[in-house]
Amino acid sequence: MHNPQLNKDGKLKHLLSIEGLPRAILNQILDTAESFTGVSEREVKKVPLLRGKTVCNIFFENSTRTRTTFEIAAKRLSADVLNLNVSTSSQSKGETILDTVDNLTAMHADMFVVRHSQSGAAHLIARHVAPHVHVVNAGDGRHAHPTQGLLDMFTIRRYKPDMHNLRVAIIGDVLHSRVARSEIHALTTLGVPEVRVIAPKTLLPQDVEKLGVQVYHDMRAGLKDVDVVMMLRLQNERMSGSLLPSAQEYFKCFGLTQEKLALAKPDAIVMHPGPMNRGVEIDSAVADGMQSVILPQVTYGIAVRMAVMSILAGSNDA
Amino acid sequence: MHNPQLNKDGKLKHLLSIEGLPRAILNQILDTAESFTGVSEREVKKVPLLRGKTVCNIFFENSTRTRTTFEIAAKRLSADVLNLNVSTSSQSKGETILDTVDNLTAMHADMFVVRHSQSGAAHLIARHVAPHVHVVNAGDGRHAHPTQGLLDMFTIRRYKPDMHNLRVAIIGDVLHSRVARSEIHALTTLGVPEVRVIAPKTLLPQDVEKLGVQVYHDMRAGLKDVDVVMMLRLQNERMSGSLLPSAQEYFKCFGLTQEKLALAKPDAIVMHPGPMNRGVEIDSAVADGMQSVILPQVTYGIAVRMAVMSILAGSNDA
Amino acid sequence: MHNPQLNKDGKLKHLLSIEGLPRAILNQILDTAESFTGVSEREVKKVPLLRGKTVCNIFFENSTRTRTTFEIAAKRLSADVLNLNVSTSSQSKGETILDTVDNLTAMHADMFVVRHSQSGAAHLIARHVAPHVHVVNAGDGRHAHPTQGLLDMFTIRRYKPDMHNLRVAIIGDVLHSRVARSEIHALTTLGVPEVRVIAPKTLLPQDVEKLGVQVYHDMRAGLKDVDVVMMLRLQNERMSGSLLPSAQEYFKCFGLTQEKLALAKPDAIVMHPGPMNRGVEIDSAVADGMQSVILPQVTYGIAVRMAVMSILAGSNDA
Repeated sequence: MHNPQLNKDGKLKHLLSIEGLPRAILNQILDTAESFTGVSEREVKKVPLLRGKTVCNIFFENSTRTRTTFEIAAKRLSADVLNLNVSTSSQSKGETILDTVDNLTAMHADMFVVRHSQSGAAHLIARHVAPHVHVVNAGDGRHAHPTQGLLDMFTIRRYKPDMHNLRVAIIGDVLHSRVARSEIHALTTLGVPEVRVIAPKTLLPQDVEKLGVQVYHDMRAGLKDVDVVMMLRLQNERMSGSLLPSAQEYFKCFGLTQEKLALAKPDAIVMHPGPMNRGVEIDSAVADGMQSVILPQVTYGIAVRMAVMSILAGSNDA
Repeated sequence: MHNPQLNKDGKLKHLLSIEGLPRAILNQILDTAESFTGVSEREVKKVPLLRGKTVCNIFFENSTRTRTTFEIAAKRLSADVLNLNVSTSSQSKGETILDTVDNLTAMHADMFVVRHSQSGAAHLIARHVAPHVHVVNAGDGRHAHPTQGLLDMFTIRRYKPDMHNLRVAIIGDVLHSRVARSEIHALTTLGVPEVRVIAPKTLLPQDVEKLGVQVYHDMRAGLKDVDVVMMLRLQNERMSGSLLPSAQEYFKCFGLTQEKLALAKPDAIVMHPGPMNRGVEIDSAVADGMQSVILPQVTYGIAVRMAVMSILAGSNDA
Repeated sequence: MHNPQLNKDGKLKHLLSIEGLPRAILNQILDTAESFTGVSEREVKKVPLLRGKTVCNIFFENSTRTRTTFEIAAKRLSADVLNLNVSTSSQSKGETILDTVDNLTAMHADMFVVRHSQSGAAHLIARHVAPHVHVVNAGDGRHAHPTQGLLDMFTIRRYKPDMHNLRVAIIGDVLHSRVARSEIHALTTLGVPEVRVIAPKTLLPQDVEKLGVQVYHDMRAGLKDVDVVMMLRLQNERMSGSLLPSAQEYFKCFGLTQEKLALAKPDAIVMHPGPMNRGVEIDSAVADGMQSVILPQVTYGIAVRMAVMSILAGSNDA
């Protein structure tokens, strides 16, 4: 089957999902991101790679946090950035998503960064746009959030370069997470031999084992000797629903504390995609502790997004 | 009477309405826009004409779509752009429109792009501002939306250069349209010999004939042998009011279908200011069909807005 | 006690409050602002001092007006500007203020312009951020709004350069004003010998005399022979509360009219921080009259904010 993310020369054209991306492309993004980490540390944090290009952040679902990361990345590449919060505008006039995209394309937008509550929205747009236009999925429903997955891989590679010898645990609401699926695919593709998921049965998708992971329902057993602890955010709306008894109860069983973390390897790193629910899925002592790489994740997120955008823009040359 | 849009040398100082603009000014804008169509097709879509100028988009009424077109145009001219959605801010603190404008002028804003639900708001501001400040009307109530009118003229001229030999039909809610009035004035001024309006009686202003148009209430009769079909948007709020039986009924009588379009000349072009109500005033087969120039209208809209802004900024030299 | 606004070399590192700033720093800001007044009058209103820096306007409380002044100032310094209206985003996901700030710092933000409804929010952030990051308080609760205070000092100095010979009256809702406190401290620090406050008892803080001001409850007595009349904004929510009889009654007693202004010195200047309630605390004839310097205040506000930002950014060199 044709991969909608690659052009006919096999170059990355859209970033929609980590699923389906070959290891070579993942490594190209991570290697390119490496070269961008320096840009944000300079006096003048700008390179002219996207100068005169128009990047549209189309957010059909509000997320200041995610929008900010893409806006900073695009501006550091010298692009002109447009923020469109569509929920409050033309959508209410009955204009379809594709009409909105067609209009922006007609204005010679070069790249769309798309956030939508529905799975598949970014794919829909990518299938529709003109050949010179690029789409980045910034989160679609429960489906995918590939730049988050990529920045997590970048972070792991920075702290644990030998990915072929890692034991990684992903902990929490795997069922509703748009991040977990991306992580698992990326880890597997990059050759991580052991990926564990730790969660109550109610927060795991059916047949999760088929993704190539080991399933644990007991956190202490699951954390034993892991190198990387990846926490997932517990959505507020889950906390008092039928899936969970209460936030306190959840913290007791699946919240990451120093005491539980001690079961992992002594040099294990702790990750979280943010925003954190302190005291629900993670204790503040761990979040702000020595093993936490949660803020470096954010820093690397800018470099990774700059890498993705510059690679996409460069794929026109082919 | 003094024309508030022109300075004492007859140069364009504000763009408030197509009414009152001499043909030479209209042609100046269209000719200048011609030179800007290339900018948006370049690798680096930027020219430095407004570098270091501050353009304020003051939207007293929300319109992401219109704001976006002006923001892109201003940024491609290298201006600094400020977006102010005033409905949610100082207006609620009881500050008057003119106090808002005075404040921004005191901050050395160079240009105001104004959208307001009240007719005459842009005129009010233009009368008030300091001599070096320019005002562009981005839509005021039912009154005027001159850049839309201009981009429509630009589109017609591109596809049908001999404007002295055209038959143009404007179809739909003429009564509530801020576009229709601009169109009629522009077409007449540019020498189009036959302009028709096609609408039910309830959606036509009284004495519409006095604008120099021919009135049709039957779409098939009105479309006969026209070169240009200009559809108007039907506002949602009209659809179930006392003016119209229903959206379905409206589509049956005044919706543009392939079958009705066949009555126009074979090479007739179809235009729509957007956003479209597909299946209400226009069928998707027509909107996306061979004769549709709806997306080129959007493309030319950027060039026309760049032209207007650069001409206004240049009128200071006088 | 350590002054959180200064680095160990005594240079300005954060601008949180005028209280605690030595006269030398105030004069440094005012002198630097002097050099920036010219920038906004140029053809190209830009200097490259903050090129490649990321300035984040974090507004936990909406204020388009204040945000605009900082956005213009930062853009004229060539910074990349990010606007974050946090009330509608991550705050609602339970992320703490400091997590938000940590995240933006991890993205290599260089400066935070902070507006918050709670007193002390900017101080909290300043205590928390990394050494190379700068914080500007853009208004925190009733506490402080130092750039407003500074631009007022700049305005007074421009019109009345001999500050050691001035009589200044501050009139209105001193109790709830975040401006009044800043003004009083600034005036005292810069050597103004006589500062009066004029207000009904219900709108004055207890022990206001301890700030070194003379208290008047009668406007006519208080205005007698003053050089500078500084009006305060009356918050709408006070007008019909238990503190005041009515807006009309307030205007009668404490509204500034031409007739009352005549009691001040003939060349007295009239100031207001905006937005004005015309007909409540100030009559339009005065607001727009010969003695009003209300719009010059706005103009100088840009130069003062540019000065503050460039001084803060420069304090890294130490």
